[in-house]
Amino acid sequence: MSRMNYMTPEYEETYIKNMEKILSLRPQVEKIVDQVMTPEKKNLFLVGIGGTLAIMLPFMKMFKKMSDAPVYAENAAELLAEGNRELCSDSVIFLMSDSGSTKEIIEVIKMAKEIGAVTICGIGHKDTPIEKLVDHSVLYLYKDAYTADADYLLQYMFFAYYLEKRGEFPDYQKFTENLARLPKALVEVKRQGDIQGEEYAKKYHKEDYTIFTAGGNIWGEIYCFAMCVLEEMQWIRTKSVTASDFFHGTLELVDEDTHVFIAKCEDESRPVTDRIEKFCRQYSDKVTVYDTKDYALEGIDPEYRSMFSPLVICAAVGRISPHMEYATGHSLAFRRYYKVVDY
Amino acid sequence: MSRMNYMTPEYEETYIKNMEKILSLRPQVEKIVDQVMTPEKKNLFLVGIGGTLAIMLPFMKMFKKMSDAPVYAENAAELLAEGNRELCSDSVIFLMSDSGSTKEIIEVIKMAKEIGAVTICGIGHKDTPIEKLVDHSVLYLYKDAYTADADYLLQYMFFAYYLEKRGEFPDYQKFTENLARLPKALVEVKRQGDIQGEEYAKKYHKEDYTIFTAGGNIWGEIYCFAMCVLEEMQWIRTKSVTASDFFHGTLELVDEDTHVFIAKCEDESRPVTDRIEKFCRQYSDKVTVYDTKDYALEGIDPEYRSMFSPLVICAAVGRISPHMEYATGHSLAFRRYYKVVDY
Repeated sequence: MSRMNYMTPEYEETYIKNMEKILSLRPQVEKIVDQVMTPEKKNLFLVGIGGTLAIMLPFMKMFKKMSDAPVYAENAAELLAEGNRELCSDSVIFLMSDSGSTKEIIEVIKMAKEIGAVTICGIGHKDTPIEKLVDHSVLYLYKDAYTADADYLLQYMFFAYYLEKRGEFPDYQKFTENLARLPKALVEVKRQGDIQGEEYAKKYHKEDYTIFTAGGNIWGEIYCFAMCVLEEMQWIRTKSVTASDFFHGTLELVDEDTHVFIAKCEDESRPVTDRIEKFCRQYSDKVTVYDTKDYALEGIDPEYRSMFSPLVICAAVGRISPHMEYATGHSLAFRRYYKVVDY
Repeated sequence: MSRMNYMTPEYEETYIKNMEKILSLRPQVEKIVDQVMTPEKKNLFLVGIGGTLAIMLPFMKMFKKMSDAPVYAENAAELLAEGNRELCSDSVIFLMSDSGSTKEIIEVIKMAKEIGAVTICGIGHKDTPIEKLVDHSVLYLYKDAYTADADYLLQYMFFAYYLEKRGEFPDYQKFTENLARLPKALVEVKRQGDIQGEEYAKKYHKEDYTIFTAGGNIWGEIYCFAMCVLEEMQWIRTKSVTASDFFHGTLELVDEDTHVFIAKCEDESRPVTDRIEKFCRQYSDKVTVYDTKDYALEGIDPEYRSMFSPLVICAAVGRISPHMEYATGHSLAFRRYYKVVDY
């Protein structure tokens, strides 16, 4: 195994170029929103499964804060099995699929066709079944397979413009200017994260179990990282618990030998994660803290720091992966079951 | 440590008597619903934290299926920190607190008073701060400290009558007749569960980690059991993952040496948990399956089996606890941090 994806000038250059390619899709994104994600529609569904749903959750927090739009987040498998009484021909369904072939997402699009609801999908690969099937799609091909940076960026464009159309994002223009400056700021985050990631891997690559906790708008990303990277790509056991539930059960597991990973951001969840950090530092010798406040985000206006936290923490935490791969010798690309065997 | 809470004729008799005492609270419950949980109200919030929120989730599934009522489930800590734009003076807030002193629940009631929203709380103990503070309360004192049977029963009474009032539960009368027969049927579940629990404890009390998965309306109960019993009361590491997310990350952890606990019920989630069981039996030698179908539920009409699944699985799985306590020698009553130290 070679040291893939390490921070090099080439990696950084490619990252910025790829993120800027995604930003250049904005006219296409706005056109789709103008055409079908209009304020007149009855409601909006964000539908994903596993990691793709997890990284939609931050936007649910954004909607909850900024909007009166009726927006629902649904797990694709559950939506297929249980339905939703609010889903109708006047609904918009927004989906994401990296592979472009996720079974449950295909089924949701077929169901939407029957109902008459319009579907939009962000797709990470060309010439896929989903691209052929879905009503509207945006290809965002320029992404790293092991982090969701690109997926967040695409969603910021969709949902910020949707809020602007609804008259709920008065400083939309300023926001997009900040968005344009984000790739360069994120490279700095990644540089810092790379040092943190190397240290993390050195210290904890032999841990067979880690508790992950986070709150606010970065919970989805941390849940996703624990499940989709450490569990799926490293076969390391994790427990993910929201910061609000931490003190209602999981806390009793903490001792000097239990590794707790706490991610902190800059929204209303901070007092709780502060309490968790204080508690864990008192009773465990193995505490890792990632804090979005630690990254300068040069060029980003302070009022958008919190909104960008999911992508910031993703950029930082994503740097753990290549170092873990190197330290454990366990390839991030290898799977024993997922899309390998039938189940 | 004595063998507390073991299935004895006395235990069974007390259980039925206590559950019937809770059922006898129905006039009080219906009076509160008649007075304040009226269909004219703008919306209904179910607010809990940790385990109490988890055991409210089954009722969100019930509402989603049967009702057009605008109902929201909120984590108390998150509601306090982030608010909710839908919460207003015309909202009803339904809460549960076993101790009657849960910090976050007290704060939610105070917030509701400021807004002018009405509050209702089910309380497990007498003369508590919450009883003094809340607008309407029902004391359900007759509960076992280690399972949520009583908490479910109280909520069935509240929410079924609420649906009846909304005209969304045409067979309410028949439902309440079934509810009245439930305690006796549940004792049979507990007898079966006791045998399962003894076997479980014998086989798995030395496991330091178990994956818990479930879907549909029993997910909340399984999440709660893993976190509030095994983690909090036994210091055993768990990962809880919804059945719909299982194949999107966690599956890669499964091997011959990883204990997976699968709970199956009788709603739309069944095909997914069936797939998980098939998969796990192929790749692991340590698979535990609890299935609500395995319990006869004598006296219960078939159309209510699925609706009662959360309480059925709770009654069954709850029997694991005393056997684990005996096998591990770790008292269910002991805490090192929770309500012991400050944090």
